Amino acid sequence: MKFSIAVMPGDGIGNEVVPEGLKVLKRAIEVSGEPVELDLTDYDVGASRWHETGETITDDELESLRKHDAIFFGACGDPSVPSGVLERGVILKMRFGLSHAVNLRPSKLFSGVTSPLANPGEIDFVVVREGTEGSYTGMGGSVRTDTPYEVATEVSVNTWYGVERAVRDAFERAQARNKKLTYVHKHNVMVHAGHLWRRVVEKVGAEFPEVTFNYEHTDACTIYMVTDPSRYDVIVTDNLFGDILTDLAAAVTGGIGLAASGNLNVEGTAPSLFEPIHGSAPDIAGQQIADPTASILSGALMASHLGLDVVAKSIETAVEADLADRDGTKRSTAEVGDAIAARLG
Amino acid sequence: MKFSIAVMPGDGIGNEVVPEGLKVLKRAIEVSGEPVELDLTDYDVGASRWHETGETITDDELESLRKHDAIFFGACGDPSVPSGVLERGVILKMRFGLSHAVNLRPSKLFSGVTSPLANPGEIDFVVVREGTEGSYTGMGGSVRTDTPYEVATEVSVNTWYGVERAVRDAFERAQARNKKLTYVHKHNVMVHAGHLWRRVVEKVGAEFPEVTFNYEHTDACTIYMVTDPSRYDVIVTDNLFGDILTDLAAAVTGGIGLAASGNLNVEGTAPSLFEPIHGSAPDIAGQQIADPTASILSGALMASHLGLDVVAKSIETAVEADLADRDGTKRSTAEVGDAIAARLG
Ligand SMILES: CC(C)[C@H](C(=O)O)[C@@H](O)C(=O)O
Ligand SMILES: CC(C)[C@H](C(=O)O)[C@@H](O)C(=O)O
Repeated sequence: MKFSIAVMPGDGIGNEVVPEGLKVLKRAIEVSGEPVELDLTDYDVGASRWHETGETITDDELESLRKHDAIFFGACGDPSVPSGVLERGVILKMRFGLSHAVNLRPSKLFSGVTSPLANPGEIDFVVVREGTEGSYTGMGGSVRTDTPYEVATEVSVNTWYGVERAVRDAFERAQARNKKLTYVHKHNVMVHAGHLWRRVVEKVGAEFPEVTFNYEHTDACTIYMVTDPSRYDVIVTDNLFGDILTDLAAAVTGGIGLAASGNLNVEGTAPSLFEPIHGSAPDIAGQQIADPTASILSGALMASHLGLDVVAKSIETAVEADLADRDGTKRSTAEVGDAIAARLG
Repeated sequence: MKFSIAVMPGDGIGNEVVPEGLKVLKRAIEVSGEPVELDLTDYDVGASRWHETGETITDDELESLRKHDAIFFGACGDPSVPSGVLERGVILKMRFGLSHAVNLRPSKLFSGVTSPLANPGEIDFVVVREGTEGSYTGMGGSVRTDTPYEVATEVSVNTWYGVERAVRDAFERAQARNKKLTYVHKHNVMVHAGHLWRRVVEKVGAEFPEVTFNYEHTDACTIYMVTDPSRYDVIVTDNLFGDILTDLAAAVTGGIGLAASGNLNVEGTAPSLFEPIHGSAPDIAGQQIADPTASILSGALMASHLGLDVVAKSIETAVEADLADRDGTKRSTAEVGDAIAARLG
C-alpha cells in the first residue's frame, strides 16, 4: 500500500514540529509490520516564499494537491506578512478549496497532564467545527477605508448544505461515542444563522433517536468549559465559535501544544488535512522548544483517516505513555519526537 | 438631588435579583447621608407581556426611557418565547436605540471567592466591549428558508465612528488604571473588520503615549484567560468577542453570579443601563436561589455613573466583605441582599 502525502511545514514552529510528526508516523508504520509506504511531497507555503514571489498557494498547486491521499500541515502566519495574507491564502484556501467540511478537534485530558483547572475531572470530548462557511468566507469589505467614515463588514454565510454535513458527521460521532451531542451557537442574537442551525440539528437529530442533543449559547459554553467540561461528549458548532471554543478546550486539557486536528473532506472528493491547532508561534520559533505532541497526534489522526487504525492506536498509546512520564525536564522538540518514537517498540 | 431610574426586572431571575440590587442601593444612599432621592419607574418588558400583547419594548417606551437618568435592568429571555424575540426586542433594542457604545464589564477575583482555576493569581481587569455594532446589528437574513437550499447570513457591521468611541473609552480607562490595553479580534481571518479595528487602535493609541497596547487573537485570549488572566488591565474588543470573553472572564473570577455590567452611552445623549451579565436562568428562576451579587454590583456601577462615588464605594466594600465571609452556607436571594445591606452600617 502506498499513500501519497503532501507535506507543508508552513511557518514558524511548523518547521520544527512537522518533522517530528512524520518521524513518529514512519516509525509506527515500520513497527506495525504493515506493508505501507509513504510517498512524501513537500510544498513550500511559508512566509519566505511569499516575500520572494508574492505567492501563497496557487490555483495550480491547489489542483495538484488533489492527487494526494492526505495533507500533513504545520502552521500558518508570520508577523512579517500582513495579517490574513498567509491565513487566507494558504490554510483557508485549502479548507475552502478542498471542501474541508468538518474541522475535527478532539479534546482529552490525558493522565499525567496538568490542567489549569483546579478540578478538571475527566475531560474527553470532540468538537466538530464546521470548516467551510460562517465568518470565514472572507465575504464583506470596507468603504471609505481609513477615514472617519469607514464602514467594514464581514458576512457570515451559512447554508443548509454546509451545516448539515457538519451536523450529520457530529451525530455519527456521537452515535459511536456516548450518544450525547451539544450544539453551540448564539441563536438569541444571530437569529438568521442560529435558526438555520437549530432546524438542521432537529431534522438530522430525528434520524439518530439514540443520541440526545441539547443547545448551549457560545458564551455559556465557555463557562461550562472551565466549570464542568466533563459534561461534553460531542460538540458541534460553527466555524468562528469552533475556533474560539477549541482553543479554550485545548487550554483546559493542558495546552495547545497537545491539541491535534483534522480538516476532513467528508464526501471523499479531495484529500483531508491534518494539523496541530496551535499556530506558528513566531515568539518561540527556531529554538527547538516547541512541543511536537500536537503534530504527532495529528499524524495519528491522519493514519486513522487512511485506514491505518493499528498505526494510529500505537501512536496514541506512545504519546499517552510519554505524557504520563513527563516530569518537567526540559526536552528539545526533536527529543520529544525521539522519545515518543522510541516507545513504539 | 433626585434621580429618575427606569427599573426593568425582565425575565426569570431578573425578578429576584433586581429588588436586591435596589434594596442595597437605597440603603447605601440612606447611610451615606447624601440628599439623594431615587424616583423609580417600573417597565414591564418580560415574556408574559409579550405573550399577552405581542409587544416587547415599543418605540414610545424607548422614547420615554430617554427622560430617565439611568436604567436598572435584570435579565432577558424565556424558553416560552422564540429565541431572539425578547433579546432583540428588549435588550438589544435599548443598546442600539440608546447608543450604548460601551458595554463595560469589570472582572475581578475578590478575596474569598473560589476560582475554577488552580492558580488564578490576582485577576483585576475591565473589558470594554463595543455595544452597538458587529454581529449584533441583526443585519442579514435567509432565503429558501427551511429547504435544503437555504442560505442564511449575518452581517457584522463595523464603523470607524463606532469602533473609535469604544476604543477611546478603553484607552481612557487604561490611562486611569495600569496603562495597559489589549485589543482582541480575529484580524487574520476577518480582515475587513479586523484591519479597521487595528487602524483605529493605532490612531487613538497615538494620543495616549503612556498606555502600551498589544493585540491578541480572540482564540488566543481564551487561552490566556485560563492560564494567565493577571496579564490583563483593560481589554477592548468587538460586540460578539466581548460577549464570549466576558462570560469566560466571569467564570474564572467566580461565576456569572458576581459579574456586573454597564451599557454606557458615552456621549451623554441617552441614559445608560446597568445589568448583571448573567441571563434570566429559567432553570433556577422563582426559587430564590439566584445570587443577587451581580445586580448589587450593577447598582454600584450605576451609582458611580450618577456621580455618587461614596455610595458606589460603600456598596463595593460591603459586597467584598460579604464575599470574604461566605462559607458555603445556603442563603436565599433576599438573604444575600439583606446581609450586604446590613453591612452598610
Ligand atoms: C490560523 C487561523 C486561520 C486558524 C483559524 O482561525 O481557523 C487557526 O486559529 C485554527 O484554529 O486553525
Ligand atoms: C441576552 C443576550 C442578548 C446578551 C448578549 O448576547 O449580549 C447577553 O449574553 C449579554 O452578554 O448581555
